[in-house]
Amino acid sequence: MKFCSNCGATVAHKIPAGDSLPRYVCDVCKTIHYQNPRMIVGCVPVWEDRVLLCKRAIEPRHGLWTLPAGFMENGETLEIGAARETLEEACARVDIKTLYAVYSIPHVNQVYLLFLAHLQDLNFKAGAETLEARLFREDEIPWDQLAFATVRNTLTHYFADCARKHFGFHVGTIERPPR
Amino acid sequence: MKFCSNCGATVAHKIPAGDSLPRYVCDVCKTIHYQNPRMIVGCVPVWEDRVLLCKRAIEPRHGLWTLPAGFMENGETLEIGAARETLEEACARVDIKTLYAVYSIPHVNQVYLLFLAHLQDLNFKAGAETLEARLFREDEIPWDQLAFATVRNTLTHYFADCARKHFGFHVGTIERPPR
Repeated sequence: MKFCSNCGATVAHKIPAGDSLPRYVCDVCKTIHYQNPRMIVGCVPVWEDRVLLCKRAIEPRHGLWTLPAGFMENGETLEIGAARETLEEACARVDIKTLYAVYSIPHVNQVYLLFLAHLQDLNFKAGAETLEARLFREDEIPWDQLAFATVRNTLTHYFADCARKHFGFHVGTIERPPR
Repeated sequence: MKFCSNCGATVAHKIPAGDSLPRYVCDVCKTIHYQNPRMIVGCVPVWEDRVLLCKRAIEPRHGLWTLPAGFMENGETLEIGAARETLEEACARVDIKTLYAVYSIPHVNQVYLLFLAHLQDLNFKAGAETLEARLFREDEIPWDQLAFATVRNTLTHYFADCARKHFGFHVGTIERPPR
C-alpha cells in the first residue's frame, strides 16, 4: 500500500496512537488502513464412498488437485461461500453439512474453513478455474498431487473418520514449509 | 474506496473480466482491490463457575458487556489472536482450549470465532478499551446489558452446556436485527 484509498495522499507506515502494531496511516485524511487475514471457505463434497476433487487450472499449484474452496466474499455466510465456491470450481450443487476443519495459516494471513457436504447429484464438471473435476475413492486419492497442506490434512482426517465411523471437528495450524 | 492504494489513480467500481462481482479496479496499474469479510477472534474466559466479561469503553456499544474479542491480525493463528485480545481487553492470561462458537454476520462482513479458555489466575483488570472487567456466575450475567448477539448466544450455549456437562460446538448466522 502506497496511497490512501480514501483521499489519494501518500500513506505512512507507522504505529498509530493507542495502537501496538504498524499500520498504513494517512496523515491527510487521518484514515487508518487495517489489513487483516482472509478466509478461504470450501467443502469436502461427498458422494457415497467418494470425494470430489478439482484439478487446478490456475496458479498457484496449477495442475494439482484441491478441494473446492476460495476466498469468502462480503455479504456471505460461511456456508453460502462454501457452496458458491463448489458451484464455481466444479459446477457442483451440494448440501452443506457440519463445519469440519479450520486451519490457521499465519505466514500467508489466511484461515481455511471447510465443511462436510453431500453432492446433490452427479452433474458436476470442471468450472472456469478447474481443468478436471473427478470423484475419488480413498485408494484413488492422488496424495502426491495435492495442491495444499490443508487439503491433505482434511482428506486424511476424513478417511480416518470414515473408518472409525465418527466425524470429529479438526482445528489446526499450517506452518510455513521448510525451504 | 476512491483511489488505487498501489498507484494513486482513481478506481472504477465494475465487474472485472472473468469475475462475477463488482470490484474496485484500477485501470492504470490494473490492480483489482478485493474486499473480504474480517474475523473477530476471542474467548469465553472461565474461572470455576464464572465467566469473565468486559464492559466496553469504546463504541460501538459503549458501556455494554462483552466477551473479550477483536479483529484478528495478520501473522496470527486464531488461538494467538484470541489470547491477545483477552490480554488487551482484560489484562487476562488464558489457556485457549477448544473452538466453541463460530458465527457468520453477513450484513457487517464479519465472522466471529470464539474459543473456550481457562483463566490462568485472577490478575485481570480493565484494559485500555474496557471500563471494567468482572467475573459473573450464570445468575449474575447482565443479559439486558450485553453488547452483541454473538455474546448473548455464546453465553446461552455455554451455561446450557455446563448444565448438561457436555460442551458442543456451535455454528450459526446472526441476521440483521429488525429496525
